[in-house]
Amino acid sequence: MSKLKGFQKLTFTYEALQTWFNALKIQRCREVTIPLTEAFNRVLSEDMVAKEDLPRFDRSAVDGFAVKSEDTTGASHPKPLLFRLTEADELPETGPRYAKTVWTGNPIPKGANAVVMLENTLKKDEKMEISVQVAPYDNVSRKGEDIKKGETAVKAGTRLKPYHLALLGALGNSEVEVIEKPKIAILATGNELAEAGTKRNEKQIYESNRVMLLAMCSELDAEPLDLGVAKDDVNEIAEKIQIALKIADAVITTGGTSVGGLDLVPDAVNKIGEPGIIVHGIAIRPAMPTALAILENKPVMILSGNPVAAITGFEIFARPLICKMLGLPKEETRPTVKATMTRKITTALGRKNFVRVKVTQKNDELHAEPVSAKGSGTISTMTKANGFVIVPENREGLAEGEAVTVHLFGNIETENPNV
Amino acid sequence: MSKLKGFQKLTFTYEALQTWFNALKIQRCREVTIPLTEAFNRVLSEDMVAKEDLPRFDRSAVDGFAVKSEDTTGASHPKPLLFRLTEADELPETGPRYAKTVWTGNPIPKGANAVVMLENTLKKDEKMEISVQVAPYDNVSRKGEDIKKGETAVKAGTRLKPYHLALLGALGNSEVEVIEKPKIAILATGNELAEAGTKRNEKQIYESNRVMLLAMCSELDAEPLDLGVAKDDVNEIAEKIQIALKIADAVITTGGTSVGGLDLVPDAVNKIGEPGIIVHGIAIRPAMPTALAILENKPVMILSGNPVAAITGFEIFARPLICKMLGLPKEETRPTVKATMTRKITTALGRKNFVRVKVTQKNDELHAEPVSAKGSGTISTMTKANGFVIVPENREGLAEGEAVTVHLFGNIETENPNV
Repeated sequence: MSKLKGFQKLTFTYEALQTWFNALKIQRCREVTIPLTEAFNRVLSEDMVAKEDLPRFDRSAVDGFAVKSEDTTGASHPKPLLFRLTEADELPETGPRYAKTVWTGNPIPKGANAVVMLENTLKKDEKMEISVQVAPYDNVSRKGEDIKKGETAVKAGTRLKPYHLALLGALGNSEVEVIEKPKIAILATGNELAEAGTKRNEKQIYESNRVMLLAMCSELDAEPLDLGVAKDDVNEIAEKIQIALKIADAVITTGGTSVGGLDLVPDAVNKIGEPGIIVHGIAIRPAMPTALAILENKPVMILSGNPVAAITGFEIFARPLICKMLGLPKEETRPTVKATMTRKITTALGRKNFVRVKVTQKNDELHAEPVSAKGSGTISTMTKANGFVIVPENREGLAEGEAVTVHLFGNIETENPNV
Repeated sequence: MSKLKGFQKLTFTYEALQTWFNALKIQRCREVTIPLTEAFNRVLSEDMVAKEDLPRFDRSAVDGFAVKSEDTTGASHPKPLLFRLTEADELPETGPRYAKTVWTGNPIPKGANAVVMLENTLKKDEKMEISVQVAPYDNVSRKGEDIKKGETAVKAGTRLKPYHLALLGALGNSEVEVIEKPKIAILATGNELAEAGTKRNEKQIYESNRVMLLAMCSELDAEPLDLGVAKDDVNEIAEKIQIALKIADAVITTGGTSVGGLDLVPDAVNKIGEPGIIVHGIAIRPAMPTALAILENKPVMILSGNPVAAITGFEIFARPLICKMLGLPKEETRPTVKATMTRKITTALGRKNFVRVKVTQKNDELHAEPVSAKGSGTISTMTKANGFVIVPENREGLAEGEAVTVHLFGNIETENPNV
């Protein structure tokens, strides 16, 4: 009956996370080799070392004429010097001055060590006038200038962005080894839930946490698996979680942390096996009834059915978990900005509070306006906000005018957008 | 021969973009109806209006007992009041005090207007003791509290995030109408290009701009189409661009803006039809040889073969174009931060300069260190940097200690990362 009287003890978020992670001994997911063309946003599993210099030869950075730089000594616009043209792969070592036409990207011919730009030359019958002095390696991209053979081009644990792909491709890689996407099964529970687009009875509401959690997994490049909706029945919930454990690397449930005064999902989890629930009841608002569990050495997160609490629980527990499973060296956090609170807010002492705010820009200053709502369940507080401020456990609120760090999940609108 | 002497006139970026956009009369792409489960990151094409109140009935925000608030007047812990329990859908209008069990999310029964939390009640045989006074609508989520029928839940032109999906789902939408992904064909040109993973001759280099540009399109949620590599041949290039125009909404080429002193791709474009090239030669560094064209009323972007110049050209021209085609109300820009330049840099007067910098955090302050390299072609300047600073046309550089705005494309590493 303890549920009926609330949680006996709430665990602080950092303690909850540490306890759960320590018990889990999280391994990063397996490696998989994929074509480079499919590697955008995937996480590299091994250091990629340059197998050759890039560029692999001295090459011209401009259109012009490759020369020996010392041959240009004294050349000027009033007093140009005459060069013979050659088409050979090598400039003669001795004898008269030679030049060879090169276009941007062409290898510099042997014997040459600089390039004169086209604009500083003039064709004179079979010869060229060069009207500028060049120093050694002027207008030349040196061999290995971009990266040297043996250097690490991209480190293991890097989330691959377009320019990483360009560098890996330029080094001749058509495939890369990346971390497999962690498979996260999502299960909603509740008799009150009807699928959007179907008929519902007058006490039912449309289920919409699954589509949200599926997208939150995709956002981190995990692979979500939709397990549908379970009724408020311990056996049915346990059965579906057991299926989830077979096909996924982690399980997230939403709803049923307290249904009719019963801990339906926690009960189902504990029925399945050991160790089951590790932490239940977190010192956080919203998301207090969140539970963390382990079954078959896999992480199970039991999130509230309240959408904002589910988002908060996901941010605090699923995000760092997925980052670890992906082998990222540290948690990928949301971008932050400093802003000034537009008004005072009150929060619960002893709880970490996630306060939704709308950040706006006025005259180069950022202001954070709390988006208030009676219940944490109102999802419109998320669509009206663009970030959250975390108020720590030892505070009872934030003052008007206080400087805060906002974790952004949406764009900041400017007062005078420059369209 | 003008190419051989450089561009006669360079066009400023804003002028180039305006001229091109005015001539294009860009239409947003068509609408398409898709399941809500596939709508993450897509752009909504129409305002989504709430077809009912959310919640659609007054519901309990807690586990407890629904009562008439006036019945609790005078209740306290020392002096609790006795209530009868009912299972009816409605509390009797007159007579003794009644209470009905409700769990979080349950509709409030007719006749009741508040909920007493479980912790403030005690079961006494067939009756309940209630030891607290409640005001009307205490612990009740009011009908329409989240959003009211007829209100716009999510506006047209919104990029759908997880919480938008939750709100749309809660309102009963199983499908949404979004903007089709603009199809962008990507073509590389150059005899010097070999496909990564294949054999190449000693003058060839691995082609790697396509994989990068494909990813840059995906990043904005456009649909890239890979047209492969064309040789340095005007007819072959023209043929491939004509194929691209048949299957795509826009075409991007990379390389061949100046090959062997000839404007191969611009020549191919002009050969295909009117108006062809609109602007060629932009007052920007890198990416000066970029050209903008229109064929069959479709935008054609001719980017440099130099990877960093191609990225810059994409950021300046393809990004705003794709945002307009997606129907976004304004360009989606990269997040920015203010940072201090760690050293002086020199840039070209009369050009907009894109300077790659690495932003690091030291004691709550952000520092921007220029990532230097001789050639703009060195892609490692991108993998070593995490942002760029735009130096305007009327400046010749940036001073050490100058405060700058950095457009971030990578994460900022902190000196003392909080793992």
